[in-house]
Amino acid sequence: MTLPISDLYESRYEREAAIVVRREPVVHQDESFNAPRPLSPELLQEYLQNGFLLLPGLFSQKEIAALNGEVESLASEPNIRKRQECIIEPESNAVRSIFMVHKLNRMMEQLSCDRRLVDIARQVLASDVYLHQTRVNLKPGFEGKEFYWHSDFETWHIEDGMPEMRAISFSILLTDNTVFNGPLMVISGSHQYFISCIGETPEENFRQSLQRQQFGVPDHDSLKMLCTLGGIRSMTGPPGTVVMFDCNIMHGSYGNISPYPRHNIFFVYNSVHNALHDPRYGLQPRPEHIAARDSISPIKPIMCDFSEGLSFDDPKIQRIRRA
Amino acid sequence: MTLPISDLYESRYEREAAIVVRREPVVHQDESFNAPRPLSPELLQEYLQNGFLLLPGLFSQKEIAALNGEVESLASEPNIRKRQECIIEPESNAVRSIFMVHKLNRMMEQLSCDRRLVDIARQVLASDVYLHQTRVNLKPGFEGKEFYWHSDFETWHIEDGMPEMRAISFSILLTDNTVFNGPLMVISGSHQYFISCIGETPEENFRQSLQRQQFGVPDHDSLKMLCTLGGIRSMTGPPGTVVMFDCNIMHGSYGNISPYPRHNIFFVYNSVHNALHDPRYGLQPRPEHIAARDSISPIKPIMCDFSEGLSFDDPKIQRIRRA
Repeated sequence: MTLPISDLYESRYEREAAIVVRREPVVHQDESFNAPRPLSPELLQEYLQNGFLLLPGLFSQKEIAALNGEVESLASEPNIRKRQECIIEPESNAVRSIFMVHKLNRMMEQLSCDRRLVDIARQVLASDVYLHQTRVNLKPGFEGKEFYWHSDFETWHIEDGMPEMRAISFSILLTDNTVFNGPLMVISGSHQYFISCIGETPEENFRQSLQRQQFGVPDHDSLKMLCTLGGIRSMTGPPGTVVMFDCNIMHGSYGNISPYPRHNIFFVYNSVHNALHDPRYGLQPRPEHIAARDSISPIKPIMCDFSEGLSFDDPKIQRIRRA
Repeated sequence: MTLPISDLYESRYEREAAIVVRREPVVHQDESFNAPRPLSPELLQEYLQNGFLLLPGLFSQKEIAALNGEVESLASEPNIRKRQECIIEPESNAVRSIFMVHKLNRMMEQLSCDRRLVDIARQVLASDVYLHQTRVNLKPGFEGKEFYWHSDFETWHIEDGMPEMRAISFSILLTDNTVFNGPLMVISGSHQYFISCIGETPEENFRQSLQRQQFGVPDHDSLKMLCTLGGIRSMTGPPGTVVMFDCNIMHGSYGNISPYPRHNIFFVYNSVHNALHDPRYGLQPRPEHIAARDSISPIKPIMCDFSEGLSFDDPKIQRIRRA
């Protein structure tokens, strides 16, 4: 299935950069979809307006210690380093990201079904959801590299064929995120605009774009406009804070020369009504661990508590996810 | 004249990294030196303890507008770009720094004699002072590069033969410096320790070290210790703020992907009792525009007001400086 030929969110085409006002709602509505509504109307309104929410203390310090331990052992496992899901820093040879962690690690799998995240995703997207992408990000101290401004939706739309803006991302902070260690920066309100980028996308762009972005790069004038309208905000907070943000918000981060690493777990939930089409421009689909096409059955939210390590030992969890 | 063979501040030698407690005072004393004392005892105490002071509003917005205009016209002048005093960003071809600005521009020359700076330098160093180095730094929006942690004194001691820690730096902020545009970061209290760096220094190191630091790089363990002891501080403030800091404080900055450029004027005053010896290890002296050896006569402080552009038009200024 391909996207319609006339595409509102055209990008990387041989034309000038353009700014397009978003078509879809930010907070979706469906009267027939009944589900818990964990976010208050005030928080929902704030999310609608700014495109992000900071939720401090969503996970306890004990839970973070358990999750952190799991992430660190994953990153130091030689078998993991060899896998294609593992992205290595070009210069320092350190692990930068591990994709599809919910299939590589049992605790990450449980976490990806945690009510605290999934219920919010379902409320905002007004539908059942599935995992479009998961990963852990390890920004080391002293040598963490910057990541230039980009909209995830721009990439997912062009390279993965995601039809609409009906996805939401969660970043669970595992270490202190301060202005010193290269925190996520977002441009508040930028989720309301689609910045069409100039230039084309080469085949297999993802192999290097996960290390350094070169295509799908927004132009200076559009970025200036977005910053003037909404301002930049740093997503700082102690471990256990969760940052949730719209799939189309413009974000980036500067390098980390501080001694303090910046680790987080990153989950993207997509509406089941927004499953991927073919990529644009005849590009080959990216691998499953970067953009899910096969594992797209709805997630059943579960209650979790990671204070003592694994939340529970339920063999049904696999079946629930694949139900 | 060479430095003594047994040097407390040895560095870049074939030995392990080491931490040496500073020998010299931070706030110098000389009963026989009479001069104005613009800093209160409280501020002086703060400077002694932290190694830096933030002085907001030392220059008015009108003055900053005039200074900014001068800097921008300097940076866009083709004749300046060709000079060795001008450092170009390796990737973007943008002007990053212009050295010895007090000899390239009349307003910068006046500014370098401004009481507001020179009186403080004389008070802290308890002696007459001269300009060891001057420059303007232009960190552009979107593509400003990071600068890794370093102590200026480490470089000046090894590469320029500066004998003692008796110099002080002033950064005059010409644009808003925020946590978003790669502000100067200092490690509070780190001026009390000399971090001896491993490795040697190649000849003509300055040609690339002004673009990217590779030698005189402090080790991770020492940096961690300094951060634990004193913490990192961002030198943020509106235009007109002056940051003064000790020659030995550990500092650095991350890249600037924000649309907002970060411009400042940077003056280093050295005590006349601390004039340069030969560099260490038989290195050739760096050029005059990077480390003054010839123009080292004491500065006579003058009253300035740049609200209307040039402060005054006194032909004697040249003579005063060379008196």
